[in-house]
Amino acid sequence: MEISDWRRKIDELDEQIVRLISQRAEAAQAIGEIKQKANLPIYEPQREQQVFDHVRRKNSGPLSDIEMQDIYERIIDVMRGVQRHGGK
Amino acid sequence: MEISDWRRKIDELDEQIVRLISQRAEAAQAIGEIKQKANLPIYEPQREQQVFDHVRRKNSGPLSDIEMQDIYERIIDVMRGVQRHGGK
Repeated sequence: MEISDWRRKIDELDEQIVRLISQRAEAAQAIGEIKQKANLPIYEPQREQQVFDHVRRKNSGPLSDIEMQDIYERIIDVMRGVQRHGGK
Repeated sequence: MEISDWRRKIDELDEQIVRLISQRAEAAQAIGEIKQKANLPIYEPQREQQVFDHVRRKNSGPLSDIEMQDIYERIIDVMRGVQRHGGK
């Protein structure tokens, strides 16, 4: 396979990744609404730790756990914002 | 749906996201090997811009384009590292 073939594959993967991240954001939004109605805190370090543990358990490479966690730290960071402001 | 139901849904989504990010990393690794053999540069700003444009085009919310790009900047950053060192 040439670089252009791999890039076509990456583009296809990105479409799926964007779709799943969007679904994850919808779920985060729904949780944000429940939390706001119930006056619960947005920031829940224990739950975030659970997500990182889960992601690490599911990671089988080629990324190291630290690299996968790096990506997930950004995802969680953005999702926390969504719970605060409710998305675009 | 309660918070616990949404979290179960998020855990399922995370498993799929981790799998797709891993596949993306494998493709980045393959491209990295081709580049190294052909003495091509790892950093290709034009291709990275293409990825961001594509992701923005595919984003239909609830994340803003800036939020989705924030996540993708981290993904691209990690993938660039994979092309340099070849993953774990």
